[in-house]
Amino acid sequence: MQTDNLLKQVNFIKEIDKLKYIQRKTRLFNSDRHENDAEHSWHLAMMTIVLAEHSDKPIDVLKVLKMVLIHDIVEIDAGDTFIYDSQKNHTNTAEELIAAKRIFGLLPTEQAEEFIAIWQEFEDGITDEAKFAKSMDRFEPLLQNTSNNGGTWKEFNVPYQKVYEKKSAIKKGSSSIWEYAKKLLNESVNKGILLKETS
Amino acid sequence: MQTDNLLKQVNFIKEIDKLKYIQRKTRLFNSDRHENDAEHSWHLAMMTIVLAEHSDKPIDVLKVLKMVLIHDIVEIDAGDTFIYDSQKNHTNTAEELIAAKRIFGLLPTEQAEEFIAIWQEFEDGITDEAKFAKSMDRFEPLLQNTSNNGGTWKEFNVPYQKVYEKKSAIKKGSSSIWEYAKKLLNESVNKGILLKETS
Ligand SMILES: [Ca+2]
Repeated sequence: MQTDNLLKQVNFIKEIDKLKYIQRKTRLFNSDRHENDAEHSWHLAMMTIVLAEHSDKPIDVLKVLKMVLIHDIVEIDAGDTFIYDSQKNHTNTAEELIAAKRIFGLLPTEQAEEFIAIWQEFEDGITDEAKFAKSMDRFEPLLQNTSNNGGTWKEFNVPYQKVYEKKSAIKKGSSSIWEYAKKLLNESVNKGILLKETS
Repeated sequence: MQTDNLLKQVNFIKEIDKLKYIQRKTRLFNSDRHENDAEHSWHLAMMTIVLAEHSDKPIDVLKVLKMVLIHDIVEIDAGDTFIYDSQKNHTNTAEELIAAKRIFGLLPTEQAEEFIAIWQEFEDGITDEAKFAKSMDRFEPLLQNTSNNGGTWKEFNVPYQKVYEKKSAIKKGSSSIWEYAKKLLNESVNKGILLKETS
């Protein structure tokens, strides 16, 4: 039984190597190279450990780590959806659920069910752990874009108002990080790397 | 105080982006591209979650995750040391300790001390958590090399005996994973992608 589990687990471990090929729109802090989903997930895990004290609510850090480590694995099948894409809605699509069932389904049954449930909990964004995980997922590209002279905001002409709206998810996890994030957004406007739309 | 902490933590978060530029000798499962340290660390974290049940001793999974997520950060300053490099010894060098103090030292004092201690615990390899973390660190490239037609073993002419000796660290963390690893090594010899030295 244990050997049987191990073979399934090794298959899964090999399969998720593909996350290293999924390119995000955002770029690394010090180059023009796009970040991939595996690097992104590692960075969110580090941010979770480092920033957990800023969560407004007590959180189970191990659970948040599981969430951020697996949250993008569905993109192996479903692809990365750019958060500011106006054509496609970045919601928990039917396509992503099928992907979750196929990929996590490589694991032994009990573990597969646990992983699907954790991924679903992250997507739903209701529990304190999911809120904090999502705030990390919004905060990382904000740091990247402010360090990269506007990054994807500038590249895709995303206005301040839209960025503010998307980033406000940070507030649900941590009011202190949100205060800091708002300051970064204002500084970006002042620097001219993020434009306010005038109506 | 909390804001003061946050500024230090953000500096650290930006600094460790550099881990994404540290190239390992091993390559991804399905291409010729070298793996970088951030991707490698993410993969070890996933393996830890998935394989924890195979640890011979009860382990604190959160602590193992912290170990594997941060274990290579010192390489930002000290560079990657190839495990089969005969010139350089892959031990906890003075250079790595200086790197740990500089990079983790960007964090608030208490957190810096915690991270240095966790990194040191991993390097020492004495606790059950460190043993399991190290077994993950040995098992990932073994899976990569067996999937990549011999990978670094073939590229650098590393004989079976030397691989066996390095990989036997897996046994200290998990006897069931070690049994499986030995099977993979024997299969690799039979396939001719790992050569036994004859004396
Ligand atoms: Ca995503």
